[in-house]
Amino acid sequence: MRQVAIIGIGQTAIDEAWDSSLRELAGNAVLSAMHDAGRETTASLFVGNMMSGIINGQNNLGAMLADWVGLRGAEAVKIESACGSGGAALRAGLMAVASGDVESAVVVGVEKMTDRTPHEVTAALATAADADYEVDMGVSFVGLNALIMRRYMYEYGWKHADFAPFAINSHANAMHNPFARLHQKISVEDFEKSAMIATPINLLDASPIGDGAAAVYLVPAGSLEAGAPRVVIAASAACTDTIAVHDRADALFLTAAQKSAQEAYKQAGVMPKDIDVFELHDAFTIMCALSLEACGFAERGKGVRLALDGEIGPKGRVPICTRGGLKARGHPVGATGIYQVVEVVQQLRGECGPTQVDGAAIGMAQNIGGSGATIVTHILKKE
Amino acid sequence: MRQVAIIGIGQTAIDEAWDSSLRELAGNAVLSAMHDAGRETTASLFVGNMMSGIINGQNNLGAMLADWVGLRGAEAVKIESACGSGGAALRAGLMAVASGDVESAVVVGVEKMTDRTPHEVTAALATAADADYEVDMGVSFVGLNALIMRRYMYEYGWKHADFAPFAINSHANAMHNPFARLHQKISVEDFEKSAMIATPINLLDASPIGDGAAAVYLVPAGSLEAGAPRVVIAASAACTDTIAVHDRADALFLTAAQKSAQEAYKQAGVMPKDIDVFELHDAFTIMCALSLEACGFAERGKGVRLALDGEIGPKGRVPICTRGGLKARGHPVGATGIYQVVEVVQQLRGECGPTQVDGAAIGMAQNIGGSGATIVTHILKKE
Repeated sequence: MRQVAIIGIGQTAIDEAWDSSLRELAGNAVLSAMHDAGRETTASLFVGNMMSGIINGQNNLGAMLADWVGLRGAEAVKIESACGSGGAALRAGLMAVASGDVESAVVVGVEKMTDRTPHEVTAALATAADADYEVDMGVSFVGLNALIMRRYMYEYGWKHADFAPFAINSHANAMHNPFARLHQKISVEDFEKSAMIATPINLLDASPIGDGAAAVYLVPAGSLEAGAPRVVIAASAACTDTIAVHDRADALFLTAAQKSAQEAYKQAGVMPKDIDVFELHDAFTIMCALSLEACGFAERGKGVRLALDGEIGPKGRVPICTRGGLKARGHPVGATGIYQVVEVVQQLRGECGPTQVDGAAIGMAQNIGGSGATIVTHILKKE
Repeated sequence: MRQVAIIGIGQTAIDEAWDSSLRELAGNAVLSAMHDAGRETTASLFVGNMMSGIINGQNNLGAMLADWVGLRGAEAVKIESACGSGGAALRAGLMAVASGDVESAVVVGVEKMTDRTPHEVTAALATAADADYEVDMGVSFVGLNALIMRRYMYEYGWKHADFAPFAINSHANAMHNPFARLHQKISVEDFEKSAMIATPINLLDASPIGDGAAAVYLVPAGSLEAGAPRVVIAASAACTDTIAVHDRADALFLTAAQKSAQEAYKQAGVMPKDIDVFELHDAFTIMCALSLEACGFAERGKGVRLALDGEIGPKGRVPICTRGGLKARGHPVGATGIYQVVEVVQQLRGECGPTQVDGAAIGMAQNIGGSGATIVTHILKKE
């Protein structure tokens, strides 16, 4: 496999984009990434998306989008791994370039979720879980995460307020990200008083849905001028776990996150301590704790400690969600994995202003599909 | 890129499988392919599927299926290109193995369509077309193909009965395929008297939906014993065209089929005359004619001639749909592309009984998503 570099990034501001269609959102991100890369075309297009068939009545997104952005004729395909679709699409584009099959690829993640009622969107999100053995029993996706969070609190003795620093950090960082969905500082009091969704998960534990698209432009690293600064994909690893949470021997450990992170560390030749910035999948605050533990940044049951000790901010020991995370940048599900990678690139390029991690040279993005069922980890390096 | 071989195939009989779930269908095909390959596991799983989110309330198919078939932990992902999802998934699996990232992959196509009403399935199928500029105007997927067929008949002077040999050939061949949906010989009279669906397409112009799954097992060709007989993937090429038919300069020519076939011929170092068997995408009889023309087997407007001259049967000059094609083997949309590849492998292995093409050594499978929007072509060779 040849090494692959990311030479362009693009993203739309996450919002309720009632004046933009699915194709316009995705197209704008693709064109931004091409512009940023200084390229006018690409050999192939990979689209990460979860629910356009259900929500937008549109499948065949690859062809639809290639047509729209002026890439008629190019190879184009959609990849779906629920909320992990973006990360999975990046892996597919990476394989195509790394294998030598194509000389360039644009990978775009897109989701347009706000055209339907909350009830319809909740039902669509539940397709990430096990239809036969979870959803058919009446549990929603937030419900599954609530069960995990309650058990975690019981096992390790944390109280709900202990999770506040995760949400507070994400909201604080999003204040400096013009593409973020929420620009609103929150306090511990706000967190505790927030409306209950599914006990113990309240509104400020949960990431907001939204409409958005993000894209990256990939080329073989060897095709770039020698010596020029570049961001390369140093590792890419995907693993699965049981789709149903109840089938796991231990519902409080993200086995697939551990496996894919370990595999990624091996590929990149790094250890957790070498990761300068970690864009993790904070769909719910409980997922922050579980991700930090599974990836080797905290011991079992101690992920919350890291946040309480102030170590997760941009100047902390393990900076996470530096652009707002899913919690405040927003979670347009199929696009999220690419937003994470775009944000790591921004950190490695030093473009993050007040939330810039000093000297960031190695960053990790981890995207989760389902309640830990599909986990894709990428490590990027500045060279 | 290293060369990749197909060492195992599996398929379920296409039917209204009311007693099998989506996971059971797909799982049975995966396990059959692993058994056929003599392997007990695989490093990665690629799932081709179009509409499980809409029809079955299930996304995250990769994780769901890996879990079900005992591959917990393995990389697993779903690829969607409408009715071309199977071919696109094969390409994704091929890239993963060819790049050196994994040492084996199972690619499975699956669709379970008969649990919903015909109206719901028709709406789900329409997501392959342009939601904003075709479907929103009220046209269905069969309606789009009917417009193309009518124009073709007008431009080239063919009458409806001239398309009968395509359907008759597929039905005749399916009689010898135990996995086919329809086992029913038809005559020109049957064809002409069949119920009208969308003028000029009648029931016997159109392929039936169904529930089914098919799978192939991929390994690097270099990992196999030297000199032993093998089936290798000699070419793989995907191209797109406009998603909306009305955006094409010429609605009667499958530009993406031509481009992907030409690219595949180049990769494999062959010409159309070298193709011993061609499993084409006969979703409607008109697509047989257009595919034969775009891929260089007939001149523009003369695809029908080839069928009328008796050249498309297993003993003809251009054998197509040798196991029944979409028309009679059946068209479980996201699975179809893998059924086609499985059938080409059967031909190259000489396992097709009365519809065996004598001395078949090179076969082509072409899978179409939308009305010619996404086209994936694979050429397999017996070595």
